[in-house]
Amino acid sequence: MSATDLAPLAIDDELAAAARAARVLATTSTGRKHEALEAIAVAIETGADRILPANELDLANGRENGLSAGLQDRLRLDPTRLAGLAAAVREIIALPDPVGVVVRGSTLPNGLQLSQVRVPFGVVGAIYEARPNVTIDIASLALKSSNAVVLRGGRAAQGTNAVLVELLQGALTSVGLPAEAVQTVDRFGREGGTMLMHAVGRVDVLIPRGSADLIDSVVRESKVPVIETGAGVVHLFLDESADETTSIDIAVNSKVQRPSVCNALETLLVDARAAARLLPPVVAALRERGVTIKGDDRARAIVAGLPPATDEDYATEHMSLDMSVAVVDDLDGALEHIRRFSTKHTESIVTNDYARAERFLAEVDSAVVMVNASTRFTDGGEFGFGAEVGISTQKLHARGPMGLQELTSTKWLVRGAGQVRG
Amino acid sequence: MSATDLAPLAIDDELAAAARAARVLATTSTGRKHEALEAIAVAIETGADRILPANELDLANGRENGLSAGLQDRLRLDPTRLAGLAAAVREIIALPDPVGVVVRGSTLPNGLQLSQVRVPFGVVGAIYEARPNVTIDIASLALKSSNAVVLRGGRAAQGTNAVLVELLQGALTSVGLPAEAVQTVDRFGREGGTMLMHAVGRVDVLIPRGSADLIDSVVRESKVPVIETGAGVVHLFLDESADETTSIDIAVNSKVQRPSVCNALETLLVDARAAARLLPPVVAALRERGVTIKGDDRARAIVAGLPPATDEDYATEHMSLDMSVAVVDDLDGALEHIRRFSTKHTESIVTNDYARAERFLAEVDSAVVMVNASTRFTDGGEFGFGAEVGISTQKLHARGPMGLQELTSTKWLVRGAGQVRG
Repeated sequence: MSATDLAPLAIDDELAAAARAARVLATTSTGRKHEALEAIAVAIETGADRILPANELDLANGRENGLSAGLQDRLRLDPTRLAGLAAAVREIIALPDPVGVVVRGSTLPNGLQLSQVRVPFGVVGAIYEARPNVTIDIASLALKSSNAVVLRGGRAAQGTNAVLVELLQGALTSVGLPAEAVQTVDRFGREGGTMLMHAVGRVDVLIPRGSADLIDSVVRESKVPVIETGAGVVHLFLDESADETTSIDIAVNSKVQRPSVCNALETLLVDARAAARLLPPVVAALRERGVTIKGDDRARAIVAGLPPATDEDYATEHMSLDMSVAVVDDLDGALEHIRRFSTKHTESIVTNDYARAERFLAEVDSAVVMVNASTRFTDGGEFGFGAEVGISTQKLHARGPMGLQELTSTKWLVRGAGQVRG
Repeated sequence: MSATDLAPLAIDDELAAAARAARVLATTSTGRKHEALEAIAVAIETGADRILPANELDLANGRENGLSAGLQDRLRLDPTRLAGLAAAVREIIALPDPVGVVVRGSTLPNGLQLSQVRVPFGVVGAIYEARPNVTIDIASLALKSSNAVVLRGGRAAQGTNAVLVELLQGALTSVGLPAEAVQTVDRFGREGGTMLMHAVGRVDVLIPRGSADLIDSVVRESKVPVIETGAGVVHLFLDESADETTSIDIAVNSKVQRPSVCNALETLLVDARAAARLLPPVVAALRERGVTIKGDDRARAIVAGLPPATDEDYATEHMSLDMSVAVVDDLDGALEHIRRFSTKHTESIVTNDYARAERFLAEVDSAVVMVNASTRFTDGGEFGFGAEVGISTQKLHARGPMGLQELTSTKWLVRGAGQVRG
């Protein structure tokens, strides 16, 4: 594709300015980026008197338009949340700079010196829902990795985001960096997101963050490469050899510790030979914590009061205290159920059998596969990445928790002394 | 996206069989894969009596349908080319197996053992033109990296490819591997490619190989993640400090050594302060080798007989002995021209100035950036990767020459002892 056959877009100006800003960021020192991030943290702290009224207005409009209580909660900012946001920005300062890291290198037989180095993508697009914290989060991660970012946030947060982007841009210019390193295309409404998805060659990568529906629609419509942060229909398999206490601890922690997130458990599978021993105490422990459980016929024959689970139940990411159980013949039965219903996010096995543990690790095709551990550990923070961009359930570029490194590409540098090819 | 909301496709059977084969390949030993590759090499050698008549028929049809001489040449197989194909398969045997390599790992403070290991993508789709060698090439690379592959080749090679796929499948079954690890959807014609592009969740990655038009149309239409192997509008910049001999050697080698490939030179840029010194001898050397050169006004004022170059010329990948030159004010002028017209494949500078060499390496946003080296070195073989899947000009997942490693994803293995999250 040549540089000249790109269709003109209404967000031309934004994208051209983003490309210019990205070129500046590509060679900006780590120290300067940290100054900008510190300025952002301060702007969040001192800008409360502008952020909170704008947020209050968004919330009032949301209530008027029937925004659900859950969505209102995600939209709401308050002094405590602002302090948390500023602290999160400062945590990003503490992380290593991914740009310039040499990934591989060699000297070729002809003397050419080859090195593959991490470089920023350039212009990152982000499409997300009405959660203003994501604005700060993505902008800070993009800045630390030397990417310019063009944001399309949820309509319900538009007023809040407008103030936040102004503060972000003020922080950038206060340290001599281009304001256009962070821009919003919210003024184009829904169309802003569509234009980002079609800006082939101008947006280097697009990150959708939010519900499965949002992500799915971006994956299907975008012409620009997408990093998919997918839903989690997460499984835990209790092997024949699993002990009761570990089974209870891991099942309860996986489901209950934070049910509304993608690494929370959705389906518990139990080996038929251990079902009578394990299902009753595990189900009882889950129910004690308020979990509502459906089951297949074999589970229902063991535990009283389980409503029947359908294929749709097994395919659903509940994000709530609802879940399903199923009894499977053996490890192969568990693997088959997982193949059929998993979104390839996280699966875990509880077992004391070495061979089955290793088979589970080798044969489950998910971003994270665990033995004897809570599925809640699939998390950039827990993995030691610091801030998390999201959890990728695709296989291209990044898989599993994504840190700053996953916001970079590489390029090859070749240093020669006049070599030509024979 | 749940497992159940995928629309049924006419290539359902092929993709389901490919997924089953991919599961087998994922845990197939390197030794077994090598047996299969050796069986493929033997099948190419001993199958000449079936391959060549089928190819002759494709060629006859092609001539009847007005296939150009160049395309006929790419379609043609003969005993020498078959021997070359078998040799290429054996070279893939000699490369290290990318599957199972541990990329990163750590033990977390809570004792969880984390390791990120290379795993196959699963099902790889390939859409390419009427070059039957690509059938063997992609199938062998996919097999070595434990991927099942579903092929859609060019219509003009359909008869040849049908025989090749039969031979590939015979080789697979002869060592006990599933035949469905290599399949073709050619029987669906053009629609086969379209169905691959829409098989979200069933095809893990799609690789288009061929002309810029083919790649561009796949990038724009595919819903499945694509690895883009792009066109090369490749630049060489002769800095003020460049010496004449190096400038001539690198310009001539970059353009003439093999003009029909993507790493061949398309545009020569010269610093205005060196143009009178360097342009005449460099243009003369290129012309001596049959190169046809257009130029901008400043170049035409220095060298006689240069037709004027238009923006379209500067944006064109000629794949022939045609090229353009332009005189630029300085390094910044060269960087600006490259930003405007480069396809971000390969750019090189000839210079003796340290600071400008480093600025060129840092500021040119291309897959490969060189100092004092021929652009023809952007090549998997030259980089020491052995076989080359293609040269990626996108930034996601892979950038520059792609070897076997770029045909893999990763997954995280977590080994615990009952850990739960606090």
